[in-house]
Amino acid sequence: MTRTVIESKSKTVVIGFEEPFCVIGERINPTGRKKLAAELEAGDFSTVEKDALEQVACGAMVLDVNAGVVYNSNPNPNETEPPLMTKMIEIVQGLVDVPLCIDSSVPGALEAGLAAAKGRPLLNSVTGEEERLELVLPLVKKYNVPVVAISNDDTGISMDPDVRFAVAKKIVERAADHGIPAHDIVVDPLVMPVGALASAGQQVFTLVRRLRDELGVNTTCGASNISFGLPNRHGINAAFLPMAIGAGMTSAIMNPVRSVEMEAIRAANFLMNHDSNGGEWIKFARVLEAVKEGKDFATASVDVASAGRPGREGRRRRG
Amino acid sequence: MTRTVIESKSKTVVIGFEEPFCVIGERINPTGRKKLAAELEAGDFSTVEKDALEQVACGAMVLDVNAGVVYNSNPNPNETEPPLMTKMIEIVQGLVDVPLCIDSSVPGALEAGLAAAKGRPLLNSVTGEEERLELVLPLVKKYNVPVVAISNDDTGISMDPDVRFAVAKKIVERAADHGIPAHDIVVDPLVMPVGALASAGQQVFTLVRRLRDELGVNTTCGASNISFGLPNRHGINAAFLPMAIGAGMTSAIMNPVRSVEMEAIRAANFLMNHDSNGGEWIKFARVLEAVKEGKDFATASVDVASAGRPGREGRRRRG
Repeated sequence: MTRTVIESKSKTVVIGFEEPFCVIGERINPTGRKKLAAELEAGDFSTVEKDALEQVACGAMVLDVNAGVVYNSNPNPNETEPPLMTKMIEIVQGLVDVPLCIDSSVPGALEAGLAAAKGRPLLNSVTGEEERLELVLPLVKKYNVPVVAISNDDTGISMDPDVRFAVAKKIVERAADHGIPAHDIVVDPLVMPVGALASAGQQVFTLVRRLRDELGVNTTCGASNISFGLPNRHGINAAFLPMAIGAGMTSAIMNPVRSVEMEAIRAANFLMNHDSNGGEWIKFARVLEAVKEGKDFATASVDVASAGRPGREGRRRRG
Repeated sequence: MTRTVIESKSKTVVIGFEEPFCVIGERINPTGRKKLAAELEAGDFSTVEKDALEQVACGAMVLDVNAGVVYNSNPNPNETEPPLMTKMIEIVQGLVDVPLCIDSSVPGALEAGLAAAKGRPLLNSVTGEEERLELVLPLVKKYNVPVVAISNDDTGISMDPDVRFAVAKKIVERAADHGIPAHDIVVDPLVMPVGALASAGQQVFTLVRRLRDELGVNTTCGASNISFGLPNRHGINAAFLPMAIGAGMTSAIMNPVRSVEMEAIRAANFLMNHDSNGGEWIKFARVLEAVKEGKDFATASVDVASAGRPGREGRRRRG
């Protein structure tokens, strides 16, 4: 049984075939978010704090933290990104108790993140590129953490799923050479947009089954890529996620502050027998009721979560 | 390649592993619809006509016709149901061009339906019950039609999916004795409510794969049963359908006048590479836009379908 264990100081999350789907919140990332990038350069972490709280309230079980800002005042991320990563991790883990996923293309930022994060974070990511393999795998071994493995290599991203499988296999084998077990590798088989490549969905479902059956690894993906360029993207995402889960996908790096996608995942968990007695589904239905009445999804999620806590009930009774 | 061919006078629908999911509209059925039952006894077919048109507009590819009314004036359905079935089929096939599914527990009504339906209707249904097998299979052979096979037998509905598989296998073998090929059997593996049986979803996914791989048959189900008794049923159905399709389910008997479920099926078709270039998805996105603007789903579906017809464009240009 493949179990990838991720930990914060106080909380353990297991990615696995017999576990609820692991939602890794992608919001704390300045890529493509100019306002957030400017805030971070100015030392303003209010959006990071808001994103951390909202994502956890909406159901994120792990938070990805990416500090990839190119400063206007200093264009060298090797100098600016490591201290920013440290700062952001300290802020996030001071605010929420979920495990973190340290996300960077800058070597120094990965190591700064590993030093700052409490518990056993997930590292994001290694690829099949030679330079990256030799840089990241020693860090994975040194800190004894699990790692996301993206199935592209020095030749780029192959459109052929068999090539992407071969890249994943190479990474798993190379990790084994470093003494890293397969259960600490979470493979991203790379999701193509179905609007550009008609077989994109079936490629993922087939790859996920092969990765699970032949390599015994957990899997993740950037789920929303499947619907890139199409109208009504949420509708595609909300069918893709349950189908991927049915095929054996065990996690996704995604925006959890989206009720349609989170509804699909919670229903899929229930249908996979990973929500005993449907308790999570029934609680989530209350959130959706509040959304129908006009609350935004994050607020409704916070309200339902806090209504379930005995402390609040106690205060209410006293009132 | 398993292909179940169903035909009206002018239209062919194929249920198959390489085909879009076949939606069989379930609405024309007085079971549990007191108002419709009273109308039918009074010779009023206006609801039947409305249900036929709306279901086809919303995406039904086949229409189920059930005439199971117990008349107040005559409590013997063996006398009243056959002529009513004939009448209903004549009305429906006079109005829409999709193939029909003749649905009855009354032997005379099945035969009356087979005599009245043009083309090659689907017969609904045979079970593993001895009496039913010996009654229905000769009709299937005589009229050379495909048949829905429900996986219960004289001992009832088993909670054990292996027993339900064995019942399906028995029906397929018995059909072969009558000279009926496996590709003319569409097995309903029976969907249990996941609220009552936590493994209900996984049972279906496993059974569908086995039925396809080991017996080479197409499959169908009463999809909405999965969410019986739960809050926010549409959300469960909309995850179940894509997961079942991913597992190999090829049709469902369901209410197509529900945008949430139909959206899930159209997205799943796209993701299974059964919607080339996403043309159906993009058209459906226009229907959903109209629903957002306040139109009901059936009206929006009719409008988008008729806007796509060249005749209408022609008229518009002349106007």
